Amino acid sequence: MEIWELLKEFFDAEIKKLKLKSYYFPLFITENVVQKKKDHFEGFAPEVAWVTKTGNSELEAPIAIRPTSETVMYPYFAKWIRSHRNLPLRCNQWCSVVRWECSNPIPLIRSREFLWQEGHTVFATKEESDEEVLHILELYRRIYEEFLAVPVSKGRKSEVEKFAGGLYTTSVEAFIPNTGRGIQAATSNCLGQNFAKMFEIFFEDENDPAQKKKEKNKRSLVWQNSWAYTTRSIGVMVMTHGDDKGLVLPPRVAPIQVMVIPDPLEDADMTAIKEVCETIVYTLSQAGIRADLDARENYTPEWKHSHWEMKGVPLRIEIDVKDLANKQVRVVRRDNGAKVDIPSTDLVEHVQVLLDRIQDSLFETAKQKRDACIEVVYTWDEFTAAVNDKKLILAPWCDEEEVEKDVRARTEGDLGSAKTLCAPFDQPDLVEGTVCFASGKPAKTWSFWGRSY
Amino acid sequence: MEIWELLKEFFDAEIKKLKLKSYYFPLFITENVVQKKKDHFEGFAPEVAWVTKTGNSELEAPIAIRPTSETVMYPYFAKWIRSHRNLPLRCNQWCSVVRWECSNPIPLIRSREFLWQEGHTVFATKEESDEEVLHILELYRRIYEEFLAVPVSKGRKSEVEKFAGGLYTTSVEAFIPNTGRGIQAATSNCLGQNFAKMFEIFFEDENDPAQKKKEKNKRSLVWQNSWAYTTRSIGVMVMTHGDDKGLVLPPRVAPIQVMVIPDPLEDADMTAIKEVCETIVYTLSQAGIRADLDARENYTPEWKHSHWEMKGVPLRIEIDVKDLANKQVRVVRRDNGAKVDIPSTDLVEHVQVLLDRIQDSLFETAKQKRDACIEVVYTWDEFTAAVNDKKLILAPWCDEEEVEKDVRARTEGDLGSAKTLCAPFDQPDLVEGTVCFASGKPAKTWSFWGRSY
Repeated sequence: MEIWELLKEFFDAEIKKLKLKSYYFPLFITENVVQKKKDHFEGFAPEVAWVTKTGNSELEAPIAIRPTSETVMYPYFAKWIRSHRNLPLRCNQWCSVVRWECSNPIPLIRSREFLWQEGHTVFATKEESDEEVLHILELYRRIYEEFLAVPVSKGRKSEVEKFAGGLYTTSVEAFIPNTGRGIQAATSNCLGQNFAKMFEIFFEDENDPAQKKKEKNKRSLVWQNSWAYTTRSIGVMVMTHGDDKGLVLPPRVAPIQVMVIPDPLEDADMTAIKEVCETIVYTLSQAGIRADLDARENYTPEWKHSHWEMKGVPLRIEIDVKDLANKQVRVVRRDNGAKVDIPSTDLVEHVQVLLDRIQDSLFETAKQKRDACIEVVYTWDEFTAAVNDKKLILAPWCDEEEVEKDVRARTEGDLGSAKTLCAPFDQPDLVEGTVCFASGKPAKTWSFWGRSY
Repeated sequence: MEIWELLKEFFDAEIKKLKLKSYYFPLFITENVVQKKKDHFEGFAPEVAWVTKTGNSELEAPIAIRPTSETVMYPYFAKWIRSHRNLPLRCNQWCSVVRWECSNPIPLIRSREFLWQEGHTVFATKEESDEEVLHILELYRRIYEEFLAVPVSKGRKSEVEKFAGGLYTTSVEAFIPNTGRGIQAATSNCLGQNFAKMFEIFFEDENDPAQKKKEKNKRSLVWQNSWAYTTRSIGVMVMTHGDDKGLVLPPRVAPIQVMVIPDPLEDADMTAIKEVCETIVYTLSQAGIRADLDARENYTPEWKHSHWEMKGVPLRIEIDVKDLANKQVRVVRRDNGAKVDIPSTDLVEHVQVLLDRIQDSLFETAKQKRDACIEVVYTWDEFTAAVNDKKLILAPWCDEEEVEKDVRARTEGDLGSAKTLCAPFDQPDLVEGTVCFASGKPAKTWSFWGRSY
């Protein structure tokens, strides 16, 4: 939760710059709405939890718990929006949602309830909508790359994988080398006018000549976006950096960045050592570094070292009587175990540099590992070999729904089938005449493929 | 939500000083736990919403949606706590809870889902527990009195009204003069060791001689607190200060504290006026005042005045060409309509003073109105007369459960029955020989009584 709060602090401030307002809409959706909006809701139907009873009474009609809030919010949007003056409308809420997944639940990655933010925005024009989709996607990239030190690819989801009922979906996609699986890290959706039609969200458009003349029934449909990232982001970070000793936290999201541990050698003057430790914590804290002291006397220094390594604290400072005499401290990095003795006087500066270096190094290491998994394939045989090798596959593709469904069917197996992750915005050249690895038809785009979470 | 965020900012920082950590526990409670903890859960049973179906499948056993999270958290506490070294344990979560009230739902005051924080803390001793109960209650008083400008009384709830399964409940109680009803504003509960028994939360106590000798089965039960305030606080504020023109927001919780409105008199130099308006908003914002500009050209200044009055904005600044020439602005208070012309040069200082004055004045006015409703009674006849007069009744009472139940039964009516609100900590002298207004037995305490929300 402390990591979630650090991410939230960044993201919430950024979207408030974009004039997003905080809202909270109900947890419940009446069956009435669910039935009317089948196009969208059917995508979620198998995972919806239903309340049918309160106290000892059966409800007349069951009530759904939100798997996402389009159907909760948009009936209100239809009431609130009358004219172009009500636009843009920009809402965000931080809440939990419920998706009753039965297969393969994994803590933080795929669980029946999870925390997220969901942004829902309404515009007069497609241009504004398109622009915001990418602006938000860039914020998601920053959360992953700049805060969680996890490399991601921005791109566009295929028709099969896009948000149910939307126009198009963009995403940032991560990849876990150890398991050879892609993972959708966050999505920013342009809903187009599809939901506006479903929920009858119209506005009087000052730029429409027909409407200027007050012609009847001449109102325009709004353009909408929705976008979300979830506590899954923390799970992706854990899988990316963790090692056999436990968590490895990037400094920018570590609730404790530096743990100070006194080392009570025999005959040492513990009072003096403790005083120095407390001064160090105070000095670092004053400089805005999240530092803490583990002064517990019932644990050995070795036990504490292992404990805080398991918790992923980026830097450990060890102090014994020798250090005291030499006016230095020993600093140990969690990510690579490197130890260095630093003069006490330059501590803040050195710690800041080290924290930055760890942050950069975690990202670079993760990026190298991820990049080493990318395999470019052109043929079906290369593709299936790469799937078996648990690669992040980049392949030329005809971008047809039926072909993706076919690939899924043909790669089904114990480990799950291969699917598209995204068509990356950063496209390699598509040489004329290149054909789809799966269908042999002309390729329209490069796309990432792989097994995924 | 913006008001909720301002309250949260204050409260969250305060409890973090008390070393509370942020947690998030699940929305759902398995029926298994519900059945085992009947003593506590029965208090909530009539209001619990049950999930019985997911997708198209019936669940094997229904799952409850949290009405409060004791039964969700405490099984984990039992696992986490082993020794005195694990104590104190202090958790807080911000979330929504569901209580399926059927009678008399009122937005923000009594709704089926509401937002709250719930703090859950575990201590080795009753002393620590008692101390925290009062510390938190003081924070709740500050939220109401210092932020929402709503006067409240601190006190202890009766046995009938206390938290189901707890040892004792303290609360801050507000009163709405217009409707003559008391309202429980927030509660801070000492759970004693009752939940520790229910959930088997034990710890090895270093101060227990038997445990020092490692005698078998000699572990101590922990002491626990739980405490919460909800979005009801905003509802209480709305009812306390609102008038026929709409909301009246105390400056400390107003998302917009000052709205600047240009007044385009005929032939006025609108460019100059707008520039001045923008400068004012900028200057106020730089000084930490939440100011905004309503520069819309399709509404008249009069329409805007009414609009922002309805929204409760504490101060309005009007600027016309005359003001421009005189280098002054007109400032209008929302709470009393008072208008004053202020030299542009001293604006920040004047606005700050005015906002403070409005904050104080709203509280003082509300307190005078509330105090005017207090009626001290000694006899049953005085009591029923005061109930009919919709008073906040202060009465000497024998503090017996049966007597409270009896009073409720005897005062039942269309407007609801009278009950205890709290026994205020600020007790008048209880002269020896004073008898209970209802039972005629010796009075043990003064208690507030009245109809309530």
